[in-house]
Amino acid sequence: MNHALASVTCMDARINPFQQLGISEGEAHIIRNAGGMAKDALRSLIISQRLLGTREIAIYHHTGCGMVTFEGSELKRLVKWANPDNESCAAQVDAMDFLEFTDLEQSVIDDVRFLRESPLLVAGTRITGWIHHLETGEVRTQFFHPTPVLILIACRLFE
Amino acid sequence: MNHALASVTCMDARINPFQQLGISEGEAHIIRNAGGMAKDALRSLIISQRLLGTREIAIYHHTGCGMVTFEGSELKRLVKWANPDNESCAAQVDAMDFLEFTDLEQSVIDDVRFLRESPLLVAGTRITGWIHHLETGEVRTQFFHPTPVLILIACRLFE
Repeated sequence: MNHALASVTCMDARINPFQQLGISEGEAHIIRNAGGMAKDALRSLIISQRLLGTREIAIYHHTGCGMVTFEGSELKRLVKWANPDNESCAAQVDAMDFLEFTDLEQSVIDDVRFLRESPLLVAGTRITGWIHHLETGEVRTQFFHPTPVLILIACRLFE
Repeated sequence: MNHALASVTCMDARINPFQQLGISEGEAHIIRNAGGMAKDALRSLIISQRLLGTREIAIYHHTGCGMVTFEGSELKRLVKWANPDNESCAAQVDAMDFLEFTDLEQSVIDDVRFLRESPLLVAGTRITGWIHHLETGEVRTQFFHPTPVLILIACRLFE
């Protein structure tokens, strides 16, 4: 196994990282959450790096992502509406950050910056950001520093 | 697309949910993190349920998982050792819960219970827990209430 790369992508039902992102089984840790958000992946990334040696991180956000379709405050209201008079529920949901965004490109830029500035990750980690265009299958970079693992993946994508 | 199911599994490089868990593309939200931990998936599960209609959640933990190989306190020391005299870093890592566990079966039981007791999820959600035996490919349930989606997936696994 090659644990050099950790990839972070969305939970979206249409995404198959093995077919669409050029990643082979055994090649990368695959972290998936709503939006492919870096902040939500931080616990996993620290474990991936400190215990398993990952030294490259690739963040993928995608077109047509549900994360641009709602506001966290509305979602919180929805959860509280379903649990009237439940103060514990209200406190729990109010403390959450749903990490929704309005601008896809900016969300990738923000996530790459967040990880590059985090002292919790290993210094010198190569961190790249990508937009996965679901409608065409293209994967375009927002931040790219070529490395052997990423060049290999890019070559597979354009075979 | 059928968004009826959200699955939570580990980021482990050896896991391919589409081949090993009987899930087809477009069929389920796939959330992955270190260990496949429910607490870490909560933000994504709330979005999956409240905005996209998911009413079934399947938690998969697996044999040979790295989450049983370390203690969170040791990992915190490692991160702080790499950032001496960085108080912000120390505070950030000390505030984290790495969610490591020692007993695989108990970890599934605990995660299913956590989700079943959470008021943040939709009442009546079907929540099941599974152990994915990576060495044999078997996927055995710890908590199982048969539903059409899970029966379909189970049939595919044993074809």
